[in-house]
Amino acid sequence: MARKAQSLAATIADNLSRQIEDGVLREGDKLPSIREYANGNGYSKNTVIGAFDILTANGMIEPRRGAGFFVTRGGRPKPDMVETTTLDRAIDIVWLMREQLQSKPEFLNLGEGFPPIRWLEEIRLDQFHQRVVRTGLASLFRYGSRFGYLPLRQHLQHKLAAYEIEAAPQQIVLTHGANQAMDLVLRYFTRPGDTVLVDDPGYYVLFGKIKLSGVKMVGVPRRADGPDIDVLTGLLKQHRPKLFFTQSVGHNPTATDTSAAKAHRILQLAEAHNLIVVEDDALADLKPRQTPRIATLDQLRRTIYIGSFSKSVSAALRVGFIACDAALASDLADVKMLTHVSSSEYCERTLEVILSEGHFLRHTTHLQDKLRRATANGIKALERLGATLFRPSEQSLYLWARLPGQDDSVELARRMFEQSVILAPGAVFSPQGDKCSPWCRFNVAYLEDPRFVKALQKL
Amino acid sequence: MARKAQSLAATIADNLSRQIEDGVLREGDKLPSIREYANGNGYSKNTVIGAFDILTANGMIEPRRGAGFFVTRGGRPKPDMVETTTLDRAIDIVWLMREQLQSKPEFLNLGEGFPPIRWLEEIRLDQFHQRVVRTGLASLFRYGSRFGYLPLRQHLQHKLAAYEIEAAPQQIVLTHGANQAMDLVLRYFTRPGDTVLVDDPGYYVLFGKIKLSGVKMVGVPRRADGPDIDVLTGLLKQHRPKLFFTQSVGHNPTATDTSAAKAHRILQLAEAHNLIVVEDDALADLKPRQTPRIATLDQLRRTIYIGSFSKSVSAALRVGFIACDAALASDLADVKMLTHVSSSEYCERTLEVILSEGHFLRHTTHLQDKLRRATANGIKALERLGATLFRPSEQSLYLWARLPGQDDSVELARRMFEQSVILAPGAVFSPQGDKCSPWCRFNVAYLEDPRFVKALQKL
Repeated sequence: MARKAQSLAATIADNLSRQIEDGVLREGDKLPSIREYANGNGYSKNTVIGAFDILTANGMIEPRRGAGFFVTRGGRPKPDMVETTTLDRAIDIVWLMREQLQSKPEFLNLGEGFPPIRWLEEIRLDQFHQRVVRTGLASLFRYGSRFGYLPLRQHLQHKLAAYEIEAAPQQIVLTHGANQAMDLVLRYFTRPGDTVLVDDPGYYVLFGKIKLSGVKMVGVPRRADGPDIDVLTGLLKQHRPKLFFTQSVGHNPTATDTSAAKAHRILQLAEAHNLIVVEDDALADLKPRQTPRIATLDQLRRTIYIGSFSKSVSAALRVGFIACDAALASDLADVKMLTHVSSSEYCERTLEVILSEGHFLRHTTHLQDKLRRATANGIKALERLGATLFRPSEQSLYLWARLPGQDDSVELARRMFEQSVILAPGAVFSPQGDKCSPWCRFNVAYLEDPRFVKALQKL
Repeated sequence: MARKAQSLAATIADNLSRQIEDGVLREGDKLPSIREYANGNGYSKNTVIGAFDILTANGMIEPRRGAGFFVTRGGRPKPDMVETTTLDRAIDIVWLMREQLQSKPEFLNLGEGFPPIRWLEEIRLDQFHQRVVRTGLASLFRYGSRFGYLPLRQHLQHKLAAYEIEAAPQQIVLTHGANQAMDLVLRYFTRPGDTVLVDDPGYYVLFGKIKLSGVKMVGVPRRADGPDIDVLTGLLKQHRPKLFFTQSVGHNPTATDTSAAKAHRILQLAEAHNLIVVEDDALADLKPRQTPRIATLDQLRRTIYIGSFSKSVSAALRVGFIACDAALASDLADVKMLTHVSSSEYCERTLEVILSEGHFLRHTTHLQDKLRRATANGIKALERLGATLFRPSEQSLYLWARLPGQDDSVELARRMFEQSVILAPGAVFSPQGDKCSPWCRFNVAYLEDPRFVKALQKL
């Protein structure tokens, strides 16, 4: 096999093996024939043979004489309905996240949470290696500071200054992605039975963490200009929560920004009710710097600011951060140290080089240009379909919309899946687990793909 | 300044900044004068001026006219004694771990938990970059499998086979170091108020995690051939714990191995009392393959096996793993996914290349040769001092010993610290927090250093 076909075969094998591990393909399942798989996906037969060879060598599938290839192991029984482990609390979100982590290259993934890979390819993770090595990578054998690699924290100090948030390096804790950041905050402040507030709709991976911790969550309805203040006021009185997790800029999934006036009101309420606002700004690099954050008003007194590079550099690096009050930062660094000793200085040094390299600014500018065009075109595409937008946005990774005549987006997603189109139905983003929502979250990068309209017409 | 002096200045600045962040140097503290610092540590004055310049530019210290340099920020107030956050449960271990993470290049660190850096330098993390790039690093922008990078799990399958532990790739979950592995097991199986068993003495970082979780722990005394079976039997009846965390090979801190006979008895008890044995094998690469593990007898039915590469490759990569029953592995991968989405495929690809490269076997052979020699010489050095060894070992990173006439190793450590020698006193390794122990853990690599004997003579 030629080199390219070899690597394509490895990619197909990797995708199939993930489906086996994730239980999509189960022990005893028959794979499509080599010819069917090749024709159905546009591969050559030799490439598919190469992929099946790899899986056979790894003991994941086996040929049965005259009958084709079968899955030999993998899958797992559905968990019992009795709660025997802490995991059972969040089992509904588990199935959803597994689905998201699966690689389905043949599908149009309108529900995807990332910019397309071709938008990120400008950041070639390998081109910085020589510079990373010069920062001392070769002699890096120890855990490093409990706060994380200092030069990267110094870089973040400048990044935050551009949002008019003042944070010294000792107010910044590097984490294993924004997700560990949220988890640390949750572990530090809450005990099982406590209540926290979240955006409704909101980030379901956060909901999974909260459920796993045995903490109760109550949703604050999201309006076009941010959280509903009246409802928030009532919930603060009723539940006395310690924390309110909210995404103020480019909110996932509604694509709304919290207005400066609402940010001010939220902070007034936080002061009156001794509430800490946990501001998730994971999409910061995809939005204009000028949009005010809650932390911009508050200067990290009652706000814990969480950032990430998963959407603008690479989710595989797993680098995020927390910026907050210095004494709290030290405590959160301690919780991180107790649980994981330290974050990866190896990844942090790599990211620091990427960010301090002059091209990063150009990269985010390009990324935002693409996003702005895709948002405008995506809104037109949805309007042509007669969809209702929650709120149009100038520049957002997501659009939150309902398609005409579709009252149950889970059912819609199920039928679209049969047409090889993946949607993110509204129910997923509900903290109460509302099963019926007409809304869907669309990734703007894929809304112009003709397969979307074609699949809708087929229904 | 010459290039070399420049990088030395940066290293000194980094060390000082960590001391400021960690509260060793506090706001308002006066630094030694440039001349004192240079003379006291063997640096040139220009190098120290370079270091102070860096810290001044970063706003961490400031010159005061005629009075020298002062720390401007950092440090934190001691926490209140009232438990206001979950962190307070583990605050004693926090201070200890901070101390361990601090870099004190001028000190002789007999308490260190790692092989010396010069023993690891053979693994130059940068020399593999070209091969890492070829595995597809440049196009790596997504989370990856919830289990971790498949080729690395396949490599671990072979590694475990060498210990006669059979584990398919879907029984292996890659983690952010052995520490996240322990944390995942703890979060999955326990709730606040539950009881788990640990080795006494044992790994204090694990104790910190258990305390943070609000879980009770009871120690099983460690004998020369493994855990005390009579005490274990009694504790199983009294507390009905779900988990027993134990390190069977090269136990930290006693350097003992659990005998095959004891491993068999532990598994019989586990069967009778529905106990899961969590076997921490973080030092595996430093010990002969032939030493039997508990998991070798049990084949991962009642054993959860945890491994790490922090001691043989680099702690900065943060790659460890769990091997266990397939259904449990899938559940633990889910807990990992809910809390952190995924481990870093970037680091996992790097490690996979290092391990599959032919030189890794040679590296561990060299490492073990050095360790064997250092252990023999370390035992002689301790014997010359009249020390009592808990048990002599042929090849171990640690020796557990008491020095003659020293009944309180914390007090001894305090006095040795004044002589720039760091000891790991026995009290640290006690799950009950016994404050008075005559034992110390010594890193064999440093026992022949003349500064040790010299400091002892001075007392």
